[in-house]
Amino acid sequence: MSSVRRFILQHSRILAKQRPFAQGTALSVFVFNFTGKPVARIVMKFGGTSVADIDRIRNVAAHVKREVEAGNEVAVVVSAMAGKTNELVSWTREIAPMHDAREYDVVVSSGEQVTSGLLAMALQTEGVDARSWQGWQIPLKTDNAHGAARIMDIDAELLISRISGGQVAVIAGFQGIGPDNRVATLGRGGSDTSAVAIAAAIKADRCDIYTDVDGVYTTDPRIEPRARRMDRISFEEMLEMASLGAKVLQVRSVEMAMVHGVRTFVRSSFDDPASINSQSGTDELAGTLICDEDEIVEQEVVTGIAYTKDEAQISLRRVPDRPGISAAIFGPLADNHINVDMIVQSVSEDGSKTDMTFTVSEGDVNKAKQVLEEARSGINYEIIQSDTGLAKISVIGIGMRSHAGVASTAFAALAEKNINIRAITTSEIKFSILIDSDYTELAVRTLHSVYGLNQ
Amino acid sequence: MSSVRRFILQHSRILAKQRPFAQGTALSVFVFNFTGKPVARIVMKFGGTSVADIDRIRNVAAHVKREVEAGNEVAVVVSAMAGKTNELVSWTREIAPMHDAREYDVVVSSGEQVTSGLLAMALQTEGVDARSWQGWQIPLKTDNAHGAARIMDIDAELLISRISGGQVAVIAGFQGIGPDNRVATLGRGGSDTSAVAIAAAIKADRCDIYTDVDGVYTTDPRIEPRARRMDRISFEEMLEMASLGAKVLQVRSVEMAMVHGVRTFVRSSFDDPASINSQSGTDELAGTLICDEDEIVEQEVVTGIAYTKDEAQISLRRVPDRPGISAAIFGPLADNHINVDMIVQSVSEDGSKTDMTFTVSEGDVNKAKQVLEEARSGINYEIIQSDTGLAKISVIGIGMRSHAGVASTAFAALAEKNINIRAITTSEIKFSILIDSDYTELAVRTLHSVYGLNQ
Repeated sequence: MSSVRRFILQHSRILAKQRPFAQGTALSVFVFNFTGKPVARIVMKFGGTSVADIDRIRNVAAHVKREVEAGNEVAVVVSAMAGKTNELVSWTREIAPMHDAREYDVVVSSGEQVTSGLLAMALQTEGVDARSWQGWQIPLKTDNAHGAARIMDIDAELLISRISGGQVAVIAGFQGIGPDNRVATLGRGGSDTSAVAIAAAIKADRCDIYTDVDGVYTTDPRIEPRARRMDRISFEEMLEMASLGAKVLQVRSVEMAMVHGVRTFVRSSFDDPASINSQSGTDELAGTLICDEDEIVEQEVVTGIAYTKDEAQISLRRVPDRPGISAAIFGPLADNHINVDMIVQSVSEDGSKTDMTFTVSEGDVNKAKQVLEEARSGINYEIIQSDTGLAKISVIGIGMRSHAGVASTAFAALAEKNINIRAITTSEIKFSILIDSDYTELAVRTLHSVYGLNQ
Repeated sequence: MSSVRRFILQHSRILAKQRPFAQGTALSVFVFNFTGKPVARIVMKFGGTSVADIDRIRNVAAHVKREVEAGNEVAVVVSAMAGKTNELVSWTREIAPMHDAREYDVVVSSGEQVTSGLLAMALQTEGVDARSWQGWQIPLKTDNAHGAARIMDIDAELLISRISGGQVAVIAGFQGIGPDNRVATLGRGGSDTSAVAIAAAIKADRCDIYTDVDGVYTTDPRIEPRARRMDRISFEEMLEMASLGAKVLQVRSVEMAMVHGVRTFVRSSFDDPASINSQSGTDELAGTLICDEDEIVEQEVVTGIAYTKDEAQISLRRVPDRPGISAAIFGPLADNHINVDMIVQSVSEDGSKTDMTFTVSEGDVNKAKQVLEEARSGINYEIIQSDTGLAKISVIGIGMRSHAGVASTAFAALAEKNINIRAITTSEIKFSILIDSDYTELAVRTLHSVYGLNQ
């Protein structure tokens, strides 16, 4: 299990303890409406490109209306109109490079506020009862870490009473209220996290994340046109996909969905709302459902291939092999906010010395080397080397837990293409391979094919 | 006394009863700071053009810093950056011409929110302790009239404790929180009203309104270059100047300043903050102090000449002279939100019929005529006539109360210039003359000179 993975799981456990709001899998509320279908309670989340201008906000309103007309209870979480957050952030930087995070939050949270009001208006114009909610009105309570706050508690009572009364709640994403009674933002990508947390708090049957892609693919379709959209993927697999570069959902929101068992559906907001028949249920909709592995009947051994470019490798040669050596190396790096991945330790010839090799992102490599130079006397390595221009290819599948020999198939396939493997790490449900980044596309396509993922 | 004037006074009395917060003249708090000067508590208000971009916000921060360094306790009230409110309003119109005022308030109030955060940052960068306050955080409580809410109560305790502790309060103007726990805006120009209300609530010694002019002039300097900036003007006179087109301050904020006795100082935000010596006291600063008439030692008979163009006159000929006829005419106009001014009733030849003549703004004339056509059977007039292209010139001065013959000087001077007077109305501290609007500039200059107002 990689250190990243371990970190996330530890983190999730802490979350599970701290969060006072609804735990475990979401409850299905089997209330029946006039259409004879069971009423579902859903959260719909729309990102910045989906609400970029007035026309797109109208399109979002049509999506919401469709769900309301299908008899569902709906809460909507919105981001700022595309470009607005960047504008606001640039003003804060211009006025004060080292600014008060509480004031940053006041400025930047206004973007979502505007969208929430506009969408509520658009819904009302369509005859849909709706009102906007700011984080402080719900209240969605956070800790005091302004600019990157964590959600502590959502007092969902008022929200639930309005939603179950048939009023659509249009919630400004990305924001809450801190213990200081001031607006706190959740950091970039926080709207996904807002949506999942709201879904957990109101015990929603599903959280629909509308985005500019129509689901999660077996790999990047720009590299492999035969990539398939997955109908379903488990939380654990999605966490690996997200943290390894699939870029569909923020890692943090997937973590939270997993901890609270929020069934999360990734779908496109650019589909014509009129062409979607919501009453037919999730399975027939275009998109990917991220859910508990129990919900996935036919489990594939390999689910997807992810990759990250811009990796760099640092090697410390002939380090004394003594207790505490890992802490001496990785402690200073962590203190400097440098994320370390793919750690390989090999024993050198005489057994008293070891070589430590690990990856960092290419952007961090100079800083990492500087930190290690400064810590040289404490570590006592002989040589420091670094390589850039590397890529990490990851093969993910929950079925690996019960299938042996999955990785060896990859090694053979890559060898056949003369792709050199520089490092390997494995965890329960994935393995990652470090290669020269020039071979990224070839490796992704090769593995996509060899594991039978092509359409 | 004109009906407009009467309305304002009645209104002010209602305000005085309803408003639970600090009444009467502001208290001067004679605390002394380390400079040996008495500490003043001041409110500084900056409009949209004063905070139009990052550089101007920095200039505002310099103004605030100057007051802080002079040992004053400071609250700042800010508008949205120039153009922002219009952008937000246009979005609300585009998305829903008939929109929910509560959602309008959510969208539009974000403009002031952004400025408050940016200015707090700019102050902190200058080493000044500051924090932003939204209406809901103070709280500044309003009624439920979203989009044009009235301030009901300001719970100033927290604000006072922070300000007197040396922290600058940067308050988003134009907004408060309604009894429904939702953001309510005060309507256009509401930031002036916010500032005066905050000043009353925190018992400020002075409310400084920084604007794009450097004070209140004896008349419009674009018409009469010899117009003088007044050092002081009474609340009552300013109310007449503001309601008659001086455009420096919203009528509503002057009303509130009068009711609560808030000394209000109009000054330019474009002055170089470094060149102003704040410790020398208000009298030596460039600007106009609006204050109680008791503070004005040498009272002029005539203080200023105001004007409004785009006036129209409507005459109803041969109306039966019976009780209730005024209500029959002006009731339907009021119901249609048409403001009526300068009403003249003249008796026709045989005494049983009367002619009713009054002015409305040129933009309302067609609607007014339509309303009166519809009400014809109830009023029973014989002919309806209208004239457009008129102007109202007003001569204002609190000294008129104790001086006779002030108006006749004007009549003689205008007659000498062959300017025909079409109607006259008088009140205790002003009189107004209706003329052909082509003669506006000539009449303003003539009266400005004849009353000795030229520099």
